[in-house]
Amino acid sequence: MSVTGPAGFRAAGIAAGIKENGNRDLALVVNDGPNQAAAGVFTTNKVKAAPVLWSQQVLKERKLRAVVLNSGCANACTGPGGFQDTHATAEKVAEVLGVGAIEIAVCSTGLIGERLPMKEVLSGVETAVEELADSEQAGLDAATAVLTTDTKPKQALRKHSAGWSIGGFAKGAGMLAPNLATMLSVVTTDADISGEVLEEALRQASRLTFDRLDVDGGTSTNDTVLVLASGASGIAPDQEEFTELLTQVCLDLARQLQGDAEGVTKLIDITVRGAASEDDAVRIGRTIAEDNLVKTAMFGSDPNWGRIAMALGRVPAEIEPEKVEITVNGVTLFANGTQARDRSEADLSGSEIDIVVDLHLGEHSATIMTTDLSHGYVEENSAYSS
Amino acid sequence: MSVTGPAGFRAAGIAAGIKENGNRDLALVVNDGPNQAAAGVFTTNKVKAAPVLWSQQVLKERKLRAVVLNSGCANACTGPGGFQDTHATAEKVAEVLGVGAIEIAVCSTGLIGERLPMKEVLSGVETAVEELADSEQAGLDAATAVLTTDTKPKQALRKHSAGWSIGGFAKGAGMLAPNLATMLSVVTTDADISGEVLEEALRQASRLTFDRLDVDGGTSTNDTVLVLASGASGIAPDQEEFTELLTQVCLDLARQLQGDAEGVTKLIDITVRGAASEDDAVRIGRTIAEDNLVKTAMFGSDPNWGRIAMALGRVPAEIEPEKVEITVNGVTLFANGTQARDRSEADLSGSEIDIVVDLHLGEHSATIMTTDLSHGYVEENSAYSS
Repeated sequence: MSVTGPAGFRAAGIAAGIKENGNRDLALVVNDGPNQAAAGVFTTNKVKAAPVLWSQQVLKERKLRAVVLNSGCANACTGPGGFQDTHATAEKVAEVLGVGAIEIAVCSTGLIGERLPMKEVLSGVETAVEELADSEQAGLDAATAVLTTDTKPKQALRKHSAGWSIGGFAKGAGMLAPNLATMLSVVTTDADISGEVLEEALRQASRLTFDRLDVDGGTSTNDTVLVLASGASGIAPDQEEFTELLTQVCLDLARQLQGDAEGVTKLIDITVRGAASEDDAVRIGRTIAEDNLVKTAMFGSDPNWGRIAMALGRVPAEIEPEKVEITVNGVTLFANGTQARDRSEADLSGSEIDIVVDLHLGEHSATIMTTDLSHGYVEENSAYSS
Repeated sequence: MSVTGPAGFRAAGIAAGIKENGNRDLALVVNDGPNQAAAGVFTTNKVKAAPVLWSQQVLKERKLRAVVLNSGCANACTGPGGFQDTHATAEKVAEVLGVGAIEIAVCSTGLIGERLPMKEVLSGVETAVEELADSEQAGLDAATAVLTTDTKPKQALRKHSAGWSIGGFAKGAGMLAPNLATMLSVVTTDADISGEVLEEALRQASRLTFDRLDVDGGTSTNDTVLVLASGASGIAPDQEEFTELLTQVCLDLARQLQGDAEGVTKLIDITVRGAASEDDAVRIGRTIAEDNLVKTAMFGSDPNWGRIAMALGRVPAEIEPEKVEITVNGVTLFANGTQARDRSEADLSGSEIDIVVDLHLGEHSATIMTTDLSHGYVEENSAYSS
């Protein structure tokens, strides 16, 4: 169960003919209320796709009746014509649902620079509206229709003991990056919660989950996370508890994105401790996560801590090299400015690698989730658009 | 011809037994004067190898009698013991040459975190001194002895019509990065020039050559470029002419490093024009150069300009997306915020790719030299330390 888990939501995922292979490529999530509170976070990339520009605008009202999403075409770098396509898609959804276009968010993912096949999109919207359902299958269909190079749908659901719940799906297997990935995610809740509180909760949850996933440093033109609240449970949750449960859902989805990243053979957590600031911890963790020499060493199951030391030394952050400790899968390999235990003692043959860098300078820490750089990644990305 | 091209220099490159495969691994370049002016630029990494710490110190005098270099071991992250090894190496060279250790620079390259086999290094120094010669072969031997994963030695020589010349060698095939690569380079000249002028010329030359080579974003713990001036030609060159010729030699060597980068199948130049500042141009060029999605697309001969647009949009620099033009191998693929000519018109099947990004914002420009991300890169770097 995902977006149809919480009460008040219907979803659909259909094959509109945007993808040449005939797979599902258009998803719709509808909030039947009684409330329509919503919040979103978007890519920080200056080159924003048309659907991002549109959705940022409509989200100013913190109210959404529905989200329409397509895969197979990012509708990015498509100029005013591309923006019109997004607008027309929202208008179509609004028309069929009998609401205003300003209540409809749009998300797209796929190849940059191509225009959407609008005939397929518009008739796809009609089909999707016909197929809307609150079933588990409908949620799964929607989660499936947003996939690109992902190998499987990603869904999550958490129920609070008080009777409200949060569910969601996400996609995004490459271009996963600082400040969101090529990822789209729609999260729903039947909690009774205002748009303002929802936005604050989403910012906090994203910062510690999606924002800490860094597969290849890319930041997509289309990254979008939306949360819709129906209030259908009739329960107004405590803000802190809501944020906590939302963070759990987002982390669950982020972990699934990590696990299905392009070419992944190793799941790598990089924890930076003892940093002078959280910013420093994040910056160092990300630089190590993005370093191709570290990533290829991990692919080779090689505890080459020298590359980790090299990567952290090039970060514009507070570091005293002789205080740094590098521990890989529980074995401290570097301490006091020199080799500690022998690298052969760290066993990286499994699929999970845990790197801990302790700077011994302060109290701050952060964990970045990343993957290795494998032949599979190169293969998939050297042939993607052709 | 390289370091032994200019008058007043002898060199040697021998197999000291540092590398297990028996290849040449210890090089010596001696300046016989009459002058011993010298300058150096070093890695900006905060984690600096022992030889970098040593050489930065001795270079404060702007005077060098010799440089000793080894491959097969970086002597980085080796603590006080590693620093003593560097010191002992310099002392040994000084003793055999009958000069002071403060006139001896030391460079190392290879695996991080291992100690040098000092018995081999010290007896290697004796052998190298015995083999010192001013022949072309001696220069080639030295250029060969510094190689790690490089497939061939890199040498350059330029002669000025007034009778002085500049020669040099370089190594470094991976961890090639902003602000120098894993590269060592020794450049010699028989011009009569002061250490101050030499340093200024080297800074200017590096900034436009070695500093603009970015293969994988890594910045090594050991990067070092040294210039030694013997004054043996008796000619004091015009400072501008000297800087110009030095830049030519450094560019020649940087191009050779690019051409022999790990796993390279494509030589890619990324020129950013019309930037509001040179810093912006460099930052944008580097971000595109380091982007794995751009690099893998280039490996696949795929003119996927959307990834270039994505990469430039995530740079903290002044950009107006609708003004940006992206031209790949002479074909403008993106302009006015949307697709221009069809991507199929850009032929990337050859080994050279020219990417021009015009921001249409200002007068500044920069070219970053990079390579693609291939299976060869992954292969070489996932098996390097084992």
